[in-house]
Amino acid sequence: MKKSEEKATKKVAIGVDVGGTNTAIGVVDVEGNVMFKDNIPTATHGDFEKFIEELSEAVKSLIISAKLLNENLEILGIGIGAPNGNYYNGTIEYAPNLSFRGVLHFVRLLRSHFPDMPALALTNDANAAAIGEMIYGGARGMKNFVMYTLGTGVGSGVVVNGDLVYGHDGFAGECGHTTLIPGGRLCGCGSLGHLEAYCSAPGMKRTAFELMAQYNAIDSMLAKRSFLELDSKMIYDAAVAGDTIAKMVFERTGDYLGQGLADTVHHLSPEAIFLFGGPTAAGDLIFKPTKESMEKHLLPIFKNKIKILPSELKSGDAAIVGASALVWKELEK
Amino acid sequence: MKKSEEKATKKVAIGVDVGGTNTAIGVVDVEGNVMFKDNIPTATHGDFEKFIEELSEAVKSLIISAKLLNENLEILGIGIGAPNGNYYNGTIEYAPNLSFRGVLHFVRLLRSHFPDMPALALTNDANAAAIGEMIYGGARGMKNFVMYTLGTGVGSGVVVNGDLVYGHDGFAGECGHTTLIPGGRLCGCGSLGHLEAYCSAPGMKRTAFELMAQYNAIDSMLAKRSFLELDSKMIYDAAVAGDTIAKMVFERTGDYLGQGLADTVHHLSPEAIFLFGGPTAAGDLIFKPTKESMEKHLLPIFKNKIKILPSELKSGDAAIVGASALVWKELEK
Repeated sequence: MKKSEEKATKKVAIGVDVGGTNTAIGVVDVEGNVMFKDNIPTATHGDFEKFIEELSEAVKSLIISAKLLNENLEILGIGIGAPNGNYYNGTIEYAPNLSFRGVLHFVRLLRSHFPDMPALALTNDANAAAIGEMIYGGARGMKNFVMYTLGTGVGSGVVVNGDLVYGHDGFAGECGHTTLIPGGRLCGCGSLGHLEAYCSAPGMKRTAFELMAQYNAIDSMLAKRSFLELDSKMIYDAAVAGDTIAKMVFERTGDYLGQGLADTVHHLSPEAIFLFGGPTAAGDLIFKPTKESMEKHLLPIFKNKIKILPSELKSGDAAIVGASALVWKELEK
Repeated sequence: MKKSEEKATKKVAIGVDVGGTNTAIGVVDVEGNVMFKDNIPTATHGDFEKFIEELSEAVKSLIISAKLLNENLEILGIGIGAPNGNYYNGTIEYAPNLSFRGVLHFVRLLRSHFPDMPALALTNDANAAAIGEMIYGGARGMKNFVMYTLGTGVGSGVVVNGDLVYGHDGFAGECGHTTLIPGGRLCGCGSLGHLEAYCSAPGMKRTAFELMAQYNAIDSMLAKRSFLELDSKMIYDAAVAGDTIAKMVFERTGDYLGQGLADTVHHLSPEAIFLFGGPTAAGDLIFKPTKESMEKHLLPIFKNKIKILPSELKSGDAAIVGASALVWKELEK
């Protein structure tokens, strides 16, 4: 590296991913590379102010370490992805998986620890992933797309005309809670038949158990696993090994997901829908039936037009990277 | 009227509503009042260029008549609402209910007849209704709302951050084609189980026939009507007169519609959803079960927050008025 490059200011953003157990922090450059990272436990008890204090200390330590190695870093902001994150208010509101209850004034409290930070912004984790895809990933240059994140739950982020859609009160993009089957499976939110109850990793497990019950599948490789044991990785491995039930799980999951994606297309007419998360690692096993099902449900004017693409965010760091992307998006404004 | 007011320039827009049978034209003022109107048959055969020629003549005649009565009219543009209208291209594309086939370059042809008109814009009829609601109706001041138009079909228009969402290719806002019941009723578009097959006026008739069949309802006031005869007005009249089947039709229709509206809320987090069209004249008969059903399907963060409101556009002129609103929206840009 030439001396002049070493001396040039390198602009970076901090990404914070608040999870139920751990909160991950990373220093991310404009290309989406995580240069430094750390994590702290998300307090399972204790108060929220204390958590923000600990988080702030951890961020400050990370900045100091990062600057020791590259004194020309310019930190432009902190972006936070969090469950039930509300962009407008900078709050986390009634997140079921966090020990902290009620409405948490995250950005306001964090601001008191970083009075001079140019940008501080918070949104929910799936919205952060969508912004990450737009800034660093496969959606660069796209103005209208939707991101679905498939994991323990199903999140989504909607981008229209190059901006994330927050809606009237900051909570737009909960496509995982569209109803697929009226009166169907109990969803974690308490309603029946939502997409999340079918297309999340636990949803795939539920499909496997339904299918084993339906076909009395004592020969399936999945038959020796308890409901507590079985996970989507096991289903994937069994499908690759040729297990009929496991392959059917992917087909059904694609059927369900494609129906939901078609609803999204009819609302928004996106250029592409990106899929992110564990189940998408199965490639064609999940993408092919999803695409077929989506096409089946679409109006003729949409058929064979909408791409379903795997996210280009590296899965290990995607949450941090997505959160950091919020900073660049803020600074565009 | 005082002399000074008579002399002041009065800005108006032309609204054109292209229907399968007739095309209606109106001169509309900034308050959404239709000052003058006319209509011509939408050619059931013959070519599209000839139709645009006839339409242009009719618009010019209407402008001349209007100016005879008020010489200070300033015509700011022509807004067109049409089935399968594409805002980006100014085209009507493969509209199933028009005799003209393929992609029709409406705005380009019309422009050759009106080279100096400040604004010419076209969108689909439901989008035009949404813009009408935003410019003249109950959505004034709202930045995020959705309009559902219930009629022969079910259309919709989506507004995010004060702008209509056209999506990647101009066709966003086809919420009538979200899937309510997988494998359910045949929709006019060829897919199964779409909202339009349940919540349009013909959808209500289909529900009535299903219910009569299910309950062997020989005593229902609807039982003496053939499938060809029965319409949603008859169902309304029967419901008001206390007919059990007819009342159940409204309850079921509300159940179906509420499920669809919840899907819309989960995508977009709107401040309100407006309902427009014949079936909405039934008031609480349709609004109450729709609201109850929507709430049942919503995530807790959305419950009791989203208003379902009747459109404030006057039903007779709404299509013309909505189309004219496009002009004001264009001139904002």
